[in-house]
Amino acid sequence: MDEEHQSSGFKLLGFSKFVRTTPMSDLFKVKGFHHVEFWCTDATNVACRFLLGLGTQMVAKSDLSTGNMIHASYLISSGHLNFLFTAPYSPSIAQAENLSPTATASIPTFDHAACRAFSSSHGLTVRAIAIEVQDAEIAFSTSVAHGAKPSSPPNFLDNRVVLAEVHLYGDVILRFISYKNCDDCSHDDGPGCWFLPGFEKMGEGFSYSLDYGIRRLDHAVGHVPELHPALSYVKAFTGFHEFAEFTAENVGTSESGLNSVVLANNDEMVLLAMSEPNPERNEEENGNWRFRVIPSPPPTYYKNLKKRAGDVLSDEQIKECEELGILVDRDDQGTLLQIFSKPVGDRPTFFLEIIQRVGCMLKDEQGKLYQKVGCGGFGKGNFSELFKSVEEYEKTLESKRIAGPATV
Amino acid sequence: MDEEHQSSGFKLLGFSKFVRTTPMSDLFKVKGFHHVEFWCTDATNVACRFLLGLGTQMVAKSDLSTGNMIHASYLISSGHLNFLFTAPYSPSIAQAENLSPTATASIPTFDHAACRAFSSSHGLTVRAIAIEVQDAEIAFSTSVAHGAKPSSPPNFLDNRVVLAEVHLYGDVILRFISYKNCDDCSHDDGPGCWFLPGFEKMGEGFSYSLDYGIRRLDHAVGHVPELHPALSYVKAFTGFHEFAEFTAENVGTSESGLNSVVLANNDEMVLLAMSEPNPERNEEENGNWRFRVIPSPPPTYYKNLKKRAGDVLSDEQIKECEELGILVDRDDQGTLLQIFSKPVGDRPTFFLEIIQRVGCMLKDEQGKLYQKVGCGGFGKGNFSELFKSVEEYEKTLESKRIAGPATV
Repeated sequence: MDEEHQSSGFKLLGFSKFVRTTPMSDLFKVKGFHHVEFWCTDATNVACRFLLGLGTQMVAKSDLSTGNMIHASYLISSGHLNFLFTAPYSPSIAQAENLSPTATASIPTFDHAACRAFSSSHGLTVRAIAIEVQDAEIAFSTSVAHGAKPSSPPNFLDNRVVLAEVHLYGDVILRFISYKNCDDCSHDDGPGCWFLPGFEKMGEGFSYSLDYGIRRLDHAVGHVPELHPALSYVKAFTGFHEFAEFTAENVGTSESGLNSVVLANNDEMVLLAMSEPNPERNEEENGNWRFRVIPSPPPTYYKNLKKRAGDVLSDEQIKECEELGILVDRDDQGTLLQIFSKPVGDRPTFFLEIIQRVGCMLKDEQGKLYQKVGCGGFGKGNFSELFKSVEEYEKTLESKRIAGPATV
Repeated sequence: MDEEHQSSGFKLLGFSKFVRTTPMSDLFKVKGFHHVEFWCTDATNVACRFLLGLGTQMVAKSDLSTGNMIHASYLISSGHLNFLFTAPYSPSIAQAENLSPTATASIPTFDHAACRAFSSSHGLTVRAIAIEVQDAEIAFSTSVAHGAKPSSPPNFLDNRVVLAEVHLYGDVILRFISYKNCDDCSHDDGPGCWFLPGFEKMGEGFSYSLDYGIRRLDHAVGHVPELHPALSYVKAFTGFHEFAEFTAENVGTSESGLNSVVLANNDEMVLLAMSEPNPERNEEENGNWRFRVIPSPPPTYYKNLKKRAGDVLSDEQIKECEELGILVDRDDQGTLLQIFSKPVGDRPTFFLEIIQRVGCMLKDEQGKLYQKVGCGGFGKGNFSELFKSVEEYEKTLESKRIAGPATV
């Protein structure tokens, strides 16, 4: 780790002292989240499970049926949310055709050995957070000039998409995507225009086209061992500004908690959050089984809710929140409805947070209503609820471990 | 390969000449299919997808929540069909607890490196076919004495379950399971009595408890490079007899086809089938994308069906078969309703066949009705339909490949 980071006396201001400003400090032009890619061993099964679990459409594929002999990739979407699931085929398929290991790959940065090693280390989780930028070549060169560790230089796909990658945190990469020569794309439905060349549209014919109402990715959070160096690294190469801060005191309980910072681009539609465990909790307590179950909060939570949010939510809505186990939090501007999934895979390393932001409606220059970014906050108050339930769960695991191994 | 096998002039009789006999030649006492285990990288997602796709219950688990720090395993069941999905945790979890790599594993033969290598080679597919036997120690020692390659010697679990493994074909193992000291199990609901110790019951509380009507595993088929040595190997160590034979001529079309043999135990409730590609098709044609799509047969198929099965199926039932794309075949004894899934994972290596056997009802000594094993056959006539559609699909892939790589 960087010496400077360790000795810089890094300290978060915390929620109450932090003042939100928008310095417009981006180092390159960012348009928004593009997609999130998961590395799998079998993309079909994971995509189908997420599709059914989240209520999405299967919108595009790149696999043997489209001529891709390197990896199977399936894209599911709900509104503007795009989840991509990718798994390697056996290298023997390409070898049998005398093809290079990436000849027919639609994601030019896909690497068989890296994908295997990633799955072995992390199980099922996110490999790439992709953002659309004005120019991926400029985003890449600017990032690298400002300290980003390159993962892949710009790739030019089908003369209209540029794709480049830098390291974000851990084994997760930040993928830059930009489109050019796409003015003639309005009459072209192909995923090459709105996703990546080499993908083919699915959709109407596919039997599962669900919609549970998920509309876009609000923010993506990565859990890092140490917040300061990770934060400094990303801030330095993106120019993103701090949008929110939470310290262990803000969100912790007596036993757990975490420090976290949300970084935002200029228009604050790309929110990249990072969190670190509370350094005062020892390693044992931050074990791998964290976040294993997220039960509904106790009934008392909803009794207090009428006081906290009775002006925004009707009695009927509060009752509905209780029935569904939805958490409610507020900031100075609006209201946040929030619910956490259980971990979506075997390992308690990845979970989803489904939120609805209520309030903070503003008018733009054309008089069109829009919602202020981050309206209602990030559920600071709910983190405490979450940690309380995690602590209760960890105690049940503790009793399992005291009871001894499961087999003799 | 064994010299003798290559020079023995092995030739199948084929469907028309084969005469079914039941020589009662088992070398050890077999009770029935027990479970089928899939090796995964994320067992949760695959189990959930199969659960929803097949309409099953999630009945038992062995994972971090039960004290298993080695592998996550989830058991789904429908009737007597049991599918087990297993994935490794990071070895670092057990290391952090100073545990040996298998200390808390409920499946004592689980091996992290072997599981990784298996997933890398095969993607998602079956690792183990487990059968319940009278005594797994005897089954194992008898098998090995008759040429079976041992995979794991008998493991004694919780003083009531014995588990041993021998190689079946490819990287698939045959797992023997027997129970002892289980006389007091009638009042014990735990999976240790009816599945394996170290598993905990799930069920009532779990939100997805589906039932689409699947009742048991009828037969399991493995695709082997060469049928004769694979068949001789399994026959020799099990004593199982040949229950049915199909040659390329019986089930092929002009372009494809396969030879296959079904082996059965004494009571013919365990049917292990093996098939090999037609040796007259070249390797290119037997490429990895086989069985990619299994569309409904053409309408003409159902027009002919009234002639073929009008005495067994009503017009209404024939119409329903057409609507659902169900294939119908007959043998000299009964009728078979049959439908093939598309491959369930990325690679076209594993698919499911859902069948209903109609007819052949007999009375046992107590006058209780039961259905004769294998009633209606194995869909010999339908294989031709299947291969026709596969050939049509392969032609579409061929055109993709001529069109060149997907990205530039």
